[in-house]
Amino acid sequence: MKAMKNIAVLGATGAVGIEVLHTLERRNFPVGRLKLLASSRSAGKKLRFKGKLVAVEAVTPDSFQDVQIAIFSAGASRSLEFAPHAVKAGAVVIDNSSAYRMDPQIPLVVPEVNSGDMRKHKGIIANPNCTAAIMAVVLWPIHQAAKIERIVVSTYQAASGAGAKAMQELEEQSRDILAGRAAKKEVLPHQIAFNVFSHNAEIADNGYNGEENKVVQEMRKMFHEPQLKICATCIRVPVMRAHSESIVIETGRKLSPEEAVKILGKAPGVRLVNDPRNNYFPMPIEASGEFDVLVGRIRRDFSAREGHGLALFVSGDQLLKGAALNAVQIAESLADL
Amino acid sequence: MKAMKNIAVLGATGAVGIEVLHTLERRNFPVGRLKLLASSRSAGKKLRFKGKLVAVEAVTPDSFQDVQIAIFSAGASRSLEFAPHAVKAGAVVIDNSSAYRMDPQIPLVVPEVNSGDMRKHKGIIANPNCTAAIMAVVLWPIHQAAKIERIVVSTYQAASGAGAKAMQELEEQSRDILAGRAAKKEVLPHQIAFNVFSHNAEIADNGYNGEENKVVQEMRKMFHEPQLKICATCIRVPVMRAHSESIVIETGRKLSPEEAVKILGKAPGVRLVNDPRNNYFPMPIEASGEFDVLVGRIRRDFSAREGHGLALFVSGDQLLKGAALNAVQIAESLADL
Repeated sequence: MKAMKNIAVLGATGAVGIEVLHTLERRNFPVGRLKLLASSRSAGKKLRFKGKLVAVEAVTPDSFQDVQIAIFSAGASRSLEFAPHAVKAGAVVIDNSSAYRMDPQIPLVVPEVNSGDMRKHKGIIANPNCTAAIMAVVLWPIHQAAKIERIVVSTYQAASGAGAKAMQELEEQSRDILAGRAAKKEVLPHQIAFNVFSHNAEIADNGYNGEENKVVQEMRKMFHEPQLKICATCIRVPVMRAHSESIVIETGRKLSPEEAVKILGKAPGVRLVNDPRNNYFPMPIEASGEFDVLVGRIRRDFSAREGHGLALFVSGDQLLKGAALNAVQIAESLADL
Repeated sequence: MKAMKNIAVLGATGAVGIEVLHTLERRNFPVGRLKLLASSRSAGKKLRFKGKLVAVEAVTPDSFQDVQIAIFSAGASRSLEFAPHAVKAGAVVIDNSSAYRMDPQIPLVVPEVNSGDMRKHKGIIANPNCTAAIMAVVLWPIHQAAKIERIVVSTYQAASGAGAKAMQELEEQSRDILAGRAAKKEVLPHQIAFNVFSHNAEIADNGYNGEENKVVQEMRKMFHEPQLKICATCIRVPVMRAHSESIVIETGRKLSPEEAVKILGKAPGVRLVNDPRNNYFPMPIEASGEFDVLVGRIRRDFSAREGHGLALFVSGDQLLKGAALNAVQIAESLADL
């Protein structure tokens, strides 16, 4: 039996924090003591873990004594504030925020892709952006087989990416519109119900929004391909919690759809949903709650250099592979190190 | 004043037919006599046109006497059955179905793109697929300026593309799910509420569905570019009636985003919604009911040959530019011939 680890979860009451608890349970992670941390606003709430209620404590610099692994899902500013304390106390921080992802000293990890990068960690391991994580787990085995040289991706991103309140907003706006009332915007800047809009992350000088730039930079870092060419368009859609991605790739060597299907059929963390006869392919409602990322619509891109282009469609749970599951997988790999 | 034309609308009670009537009104088309035609099931219904109620008649081979322009929106099999009768009676048929679009004898027209093709019509003019029409009106001025060589497009297609019943299904499924009930599937093969799915048109041997193949073939025909390279991924999203498209193009000559903005800013049928500072770009709820197709997110594609790549995002009303408006614009051009 594996050694028990004392775990802290910062941001335990958030959409991702709750999924971290579920995932630790579902994967039977050897949790020793469990510390649930959040802002003082959420302190005193109780969350169920393995049938027992655990009280949420207000996070302080001293919260991390005797913690071996701290999973942070409370936003970048909380991570910057508390990760140094956790590391000082001897914990390894798995950080779900963007705070440390592009720090060259800090590994950015999808375990199916680059778990080796964890070996050189100095106390913090970054969990990638949800869209990048879902893409990476599918594209990595193809990259290994045929060297991906270019990716053009358009996303269909769920409300969960903006947190539990955005999911509630999608529900409430939908109710209001169906009842003939105006939709109220409080969390997201544009109506999400019965609408799609360009991801609301700030637009940088290069014309891309923050989400798109994260996808480009994080994919390059995880794949160890600093020049990998990526064009990303990130769009929000009225879906609760799984992201979908329409991906078109160009490979250095020729790769047939049949070969790609074979590769993806045995790829870890990936499940083929690729049934053209029944027009049955990945859908976010079927990816929701699933650990595996669904992939299908695998077909030749006839607009690319002959034999070098492939198109595919992917759906993965934003809160699981896009966040909580990947963090717990990193914790599992740490326990194995 | 322009000469009045006697108009027949076949499929008058459908989602597109009703928009044809609204559009004839909104554009003050010189309608002489108006004949509303549908299947016998809808005969006797009354629709309002310019304040007067007009009775719907059951279509027969003899319905087209004294009709100058017949706008068909009743599906391909009705078009194949009745268009020959309409032509024989002396009408010009503007056909919104896929029946004649790829017939080399029949012009396929978006007036802003290739109205010249209408001159050689032999009684039937085809109205393109909605996704192709919305794309064509935006990309044509760019093609003229810089020769588009490749298009990679992923779509966000509204329920209206599958008709009024699919729009109702989106509403009913949304209501059911919000009330904790299971979603009933009757019109579309997969749940559309709070979900996205690969377009349900049949998958052809090349791995692409019927909608995607239409986009490729129809774009090539309208642009007179039989070799134009296009990779299309058509996806349905829970939106009522406007299609959005994430488009990445490669041009033969270099084209900067600034130049593309200038070109699109004065393109007919197109409205720029391109405000990076406020993160405000085309959205289907704002394109709904609009004649213009909205375009924004105009930016360099750094993954393409330097200076030759552009990305953009488009929303256009599927029932208007994607169907009824384009048909009425063809009728206007005919009246001008």
